[in-house]
Amino acid sequence: MTDGALIESLLAGDRRALARAISVVEDRRPGWRTLLAAAWKARRGAATVGITGVPGAGKSTLVDGLIGLLRSTQSQVAVVAVDPSSPFTGGSLLGDRIRMQRHVSDPGVFVRSMASRGHLGGLADATSGVVVLADAAGFDQVIIETVGVGQSEIEVIGVAETTVVVIPPGWGDAVQTSKAGLLEAGDVFVVNKSDLPGAAETAADLTAMVDLGLPKGWKPPVVLASSTLQQGIEDVWAAVAEHRSFLASSGEDVSARSARNLAQFERAVSASLRSALAPADLLAAVRSGVIDPWTAAGMLLGSGTQTSRVISDNSA
Amino acid sequence: MTDGALIESLLAGDRRALARAISVVEDRRPGWRTLLAAAWKARRGAATVGITGVPGAGKSTLVDGLIGLLRSTQSQVAVVAVDPSSPFTGGSLLGDRIRMQRHVSDPGVFVRSMASRGHLGGLADATSGVVVLADAAGFDQVIIETVGVGQSEIEVIGVAETTVVVIPPGWGDAVQTSKAGLLEAGDVFVVNKSDLPGAAETAADLTAMVDLGLPKGWKPPVVLASSTLQQGIEDVWAAVAEHRSFLASSGEDVSARSARNLAQFERAVSASLRSALAPADLLAAVRSGVIDPWTAAGMLLGSGTQTSRVISDNSA
Repeated sequence: MTDGALIESLLAGDRRALARAISVVEDRRPGWRTLLAAAWKARRGAATVGITGVPGAGKSTLVDGLIGLLRSTQSQVAVVAVDPSSPFTGGSLLGDRIRMQRHVSDPGVFVRSMASRGHLGGLADATSGVVVLADAAGFDQVIIETVGVGQSEIEVIGVAETTVVVIPPGWGDAVQTSKAGLLEAGDVFVVNKSDLPGAAETAADLTAMVDLGLPKGWKPPVVLASSTLQQGIEDVWAAVAEHRSFLASSGEDVSARSARNLAQFERAVSASLRSALAPADLLAAVRSGVIDPWTAAGMLLGSGTQTSRVISDNSA
Repeated sequence: MTDGALIESLLAGDRRALARAISVVEDRRPGWRTLLAAAWKARRGAATVGITGVPGAGKSTLVDGLIGLLRSTQSQVAVVAVDPSSPFTGGSLLGDRIRMQRHVSDPGVFVRSMASRGHLGGLADATSGVVVLADAAGFDQVIIETVGVGQSEIEVIGVAETTVVVIPPGWGDAVQTSKAGLLEAGDVFVVNKSDLPGAAETAADLTAMVDLGLPKGWKPPVVLASSTLQQGIEDVWAAVAEHRSFLASSGEDVSARSARNLAQFERAVSASLRSALAPADLLAAVRSGVIDPWTAAGMLLGSGTQTSRVISDNSA
């Protein structure tokens, strides 16, 4: 398939073309940048939601429930799973895996598992590329599932407009002590497995913590759910929708989107530095210490000429 | 003071020139890059050790003890404190602060507190600059003290050759569950406050965890110490020295240094992107989404010309 034909099939919503395009971008095969640029221009404004939490919080079952809910409204749903404990990525119990199968044959659902290592541009860069491609292919809802334990995973979640943090009952203390980063990341908190003891207490603890947070305009709601029992799924989605409305009505969606664009640009530059775009002799000089890092950075970026014309071309 | 005079005074070991040079570099004042380049060339090979741990682990008291030990061997010691709970940065009890005073009048000790926010190039970039400047000024031991709770702090610790992780007694469970990042960062573990109950058990737990780790050539030792009682300080330093010997004898110091140089280069590039070097019109186009991030990165880095000549000039 030529590059042009691949782009055409992608924009027509062909799932195999989408899968292939993702691989081209992930592996930085020839034409990857053209492909992303074409997809970028063809974006239709997919809504993105990130689902994170510690392993065992029941994220995947919740994602499964959300897919079912969204499909009942005819949404096209793409799932990017970077959670090693997710059945989507294969690191789960057989039961979970079988349950997920029900969406595999549904053409309105596209699932992409991402390894948490091995991406040339980093995990967030790769995820961001998948979101752009899925958006261009006509998926109007993109769910990013990750496990919220490391900085790179938190960064991945930042690709999404709304972040849902899933907490199992009884996890309040751990949150207070060491998961402050996860706490700050959440736009919506879900106390999952609400049928287990301690769920109400955990929800109360979380609500108290949220109340302690600085006023930022948006106060993250705390929702009780049991994804196994299929309870509270609608409440979770209502909270996500409410957050989206808040972003749009407050104008924060524009500034948040421009901040995400800029962050992605910085990731793309870092990725390029790690691949072939930075001259090998410059990198060798940096590694050996012949040139100090700051001078080398100035040499790489120094002039900054020639860009204005291309920007005008693109704007036209 | 002219740029040339500042560099001359810095290389002569003048402490006020060092303090001034750090401010020039931190604030990106005119000539900052020339200053860093000159200091880079004048490096004498200072040994760097990072000390990290959770607040309350007794890091600062340990640093205080290490300064005393190193001064008794006539070493020139520079301390970079990025720990908000450290008495060096002023966030501590009066007693700690007074104790630290004993080193303030010692010309063989240089202390620099770093705010954890507000650095144009990020915390690790700023710390790296201070290390280069202190090295050029003749300090042969640089201690970097930070608090190991966030990714940026872990990154700061990566500036050092050897990382010492300080753990209070009874912290074993927390380590096992959520502090895996800190656990992976440690070249030497210190169970501090060894006079408190549970110290031996925590040391045993840590040793078991270290034994579970993948064989990497170096097995981090677990050392018991009480910095308050001034016990075990020599043992801590012996473990640091042992790690240095291992790095040198295995040749890992060369590859680790080149990896650190490359990481610093990437940080410097990111810093430049956030400041004036990236053309404003390009950044505006990225923010607004007129240009996709990957195309913009290619435009910024694309040509890569003109660098080879400068590298040759620097190598000569």
